[in-house]
Amino acid sequence: MYDFSKVSRSDLPAPAIRWSGIPQFNFVGGHLAPESIPIEKLRNASNRVLSEKGSLLASYFVESGPQGYLGLREYLVKKLDRYSSISCNTDDILVTSGSSQAMDLINWALLERGDTVIVEESNYGGAFSRLIQMGVNRVAIPVDNDGMCTDILSAELARLAAENVKPKYIYTVPTVHNPSGTIMSLERRKQLLELASKYDLAVYEDECYADLVWSGDRPPSLYGLDKESRVVHIGTFSKTVAPALRVGYIVANWSLLSRLLSLKTDAGSGALEQMILAEFCEEHFDNHLSELNKLLKMKLDTLVAAIDREFGTSASYDYPPGGIFLWLKLPDAVDTELLAKVALDAGIAINPGPEWSMQKDSSQHLRLCFAKPDLKNIEEGVEALARVCFERFGIPEFGSNQPRN
Amino acid sequence: MYDFSKVSRSDLPAPAIRWSGIPQFNFVGGHLAPESIPIEKLRNASNRVLSEKGSLLASYFVESGPQGYLGLREYLVKKLDRYSSISCNTDDILVTSGSSQAMDLINWALLERGDTVIVEESNYGGAFSRLIQMGVNRVAIPVDNDGMCTDILSAELARLAAENVKPKYIYTVPTVHNPSGTIMSLERRKQLLELASKYDLAVYEDECYADLVWSGDRPPSLYGLDKESRVVHIGTFSKTVAPALRVGYIVANWSLLSRLLSLKTDAGSGALEQMILAEFCEEHFDNHLSELNKLLKMKLDTLVAAIDREFGTSASYDYPPGGIFLWLKLPDAVDTELLAKVALDAGIAINPGPEWSMQKDSSQHLRLCFAKPDLKNIEEGVEALARVCFERFGIPEFGSNQPRN
Repeated sequence: MYDFSKVSRSDLPAPAIRWSGIPQFNFVGGHLAPESIPIEKLRNASNRVLSEKGSLLASYFVESGPQGYLGLREYLVKKLDRYSSISCNTDDILVTSGSSQAMDLINWALLERGDTVIVEESNYGGAFSRLIQMGVNRVAIPVDNDGMCTDILSAELARLAAENVKPKYIYTVPTVHNPSGTIMSLERRKQLLELASKYDLAVYEDECYADLVWSGDRPPSLYGLDKESRVVHIGTFSKTVAPALRVGYIVANWSLLSRLLSLKTDAGSGALEQMILAEFCEEHFDNHLSELNKLLKMKLDTLVAAIDREFGTSASYDYPPGGIFLWLKLPDAVDTELLAKVALDAGIAINPGPEWSMQKDSSQHLRLCFAKPDLKNIEEGVEALARVCFERFGIPEFGSNQPRN
Repeated sequence: MYDFSKVSRSDLPAPAIRWSGIPQFNFVGGHLAPESIPIEKLRNASNRVLSEKGSLLASYFVESGPQGYLGLREYLVKKLDRYSSISCNTDDILVTSGSSQAMDLINWALLERGDTVIVEESNYGGAFSRLIQMGVNRVAIPVDNDGMCTDILSAELARLAAENVKPKYIYTVPTVHNPSGTIMSLERRKQLLELASKYDLAVYEDECYADLVWSGDRPPSLYGLDKESRVVHIGTFSKTVAPALRVGYIVANWSLLSRLLSLKTDAGSGALEQMILAEFCEEHFDNHLSELNKLLKMKLDTLVAAIDREFGTSASYDYPPGGIFLWLKLPDAVDTELLAKVALDAGIAINPGPEWSMQKDSSQHLRLCFAKPDLKNIEEGVEALARVCFERFGIPEFGSNQPRN
């Protein structure tokens, strides 16, 4: 067999390993609840768009140009206004193949090896892994219950300026922070933008989970608050409609969008998925989201109850105001990277803290995603995880108020 | 307005310009005939997959793993066997967002600035533009009516070996060559593979148009003939079902697929489009293709008749055995890059030869895509093009056997 490693670049990431299927207890990945997929409404939307506009599929970009299906961008203009306090028009939006492609395009346009960016100390693992792969330095700012700590951001920006280091952007997940679920306060948002203005920096706002807020209350997005057009904003329908529909978007001014477009060499993102989504969302998104959030909160409550029961005082967490994940801290004796390995052998998948965090104590943290498993699977999975953890680390000693043995 | 060029990489391609809509006579782009989109059958397929498998959309990769929806890969195994004489299994296939993404992944994995590849002297403009952007040297091999001229390939490979230059791959569009429509003979295919074996080179086979052969007769693919697993094969449904469905694929051995997978950071290609396609193709692909080819041949015949009428002896071409484009040669006095500019001002879009060719006389060539326009638009477009050409270059002097003035 010809070995293509002979002609491959030397700086590639590690080759993939064969997919090994889905573990019995799957607490990783931004999957959604299967029962939340609005199958009938998507069917109806698909029927309508195919009937009325099916022949558009004969053209690349469905005659809407490379920024994405116009009907979806028109819906997004309304949605961004309603949900994110963003006033923009269809020319400010680039539809992407999920927010994953959005992240790649932004990084490819802006980053070179050796560059520096500001990130939140704990954050989306995929954002971190991309930066590590690109050889970009991450300056980490802690997040507390009000979001990114802008006092520390201020100090770090002053330090970097003194060292003549100009960060390429400030990356933040301000609304339903990944992994903590925190919502950045309005005051912090204003402070962040003031600092960006003072140091003339770009801001990269990732609002992928922002619609999943139990109360529905959220401050305006950074993009919406920004008066200087220095924010690039990304979002997705993966977390609100269906992950396997690969439809995300970027909102930014033309000096960035024009560069991202020239890097988007995929001849357009899937148009039928865009058309179906636009049709579905116009009529159903608001109600669908409200139902979804109820379901997710119920799953979170089940998860939290199971953790309280199985881990007791060994586990600490802040109850998140939204999202699909819980950020958990275990005692010092536990190493979650090791735990993730032994857990996977037992059919339980978790995200160990160091993949999601640059905190010193990240090895005591883990992230549990709760949207996909059903309530019984959540309960059994937490019980199984506690048992594996006890067997390896002697913690938690008690489960359901009984000593383990 | 914040200017993101301040934080952009210095080596980006030129920023995009605003999309300006679709010209009245559009002879560019791999669009299909709008009347050929199987709307009703796609609707039925969509209804079935959503009803039966809609909840799979809750999971990234629809529980099939990152290589793509298993149902589509299962169909592809059968299709590749039937149409391309390829014997493979679902593990050998990576589903991509169109063949555009397939091309990017292969290039990203294999190519660095300063590398050398073998290409066909005239070829897909998007393949050329990618290589130019990456700073890769192209060694061009002419194509005649039997495909790539393997005697010249042999001489060039010997020359490169003497210079210690090892090409990263031999790129070819063997079946319905872009832009000439040529089908490489079986003998040439075997010679190409022998040369690849002799020099231990990878072969990159692009079969994007290969299903569009009027007669249905075609030799086995290079991948199917290769005994040494040195061919990477790409294909797409864009040219047979719908361009705006972004579903292509790569067939290769694991030493390459594993590297492509680690570069495919988009969290999967659109799953609903894959599911609908698989459902549609299982039942309808063969008949659909046969109808499509009849329609395309009728459009080609209309185009050729219009060219004969309007350009007369000023235009020469080989009638292609398939595809969606005609490769045309005009007299020396015409510069097709200039013609493309003045034509666009008159609402006529064409591909000037130099975008598609490294031939010395590429400026006398142009490519006309004929799948999208209807018969009347083809006729009027050719008439308009001839008039613009005459006004700028004094050629063709006659149209419909009458002198122009």
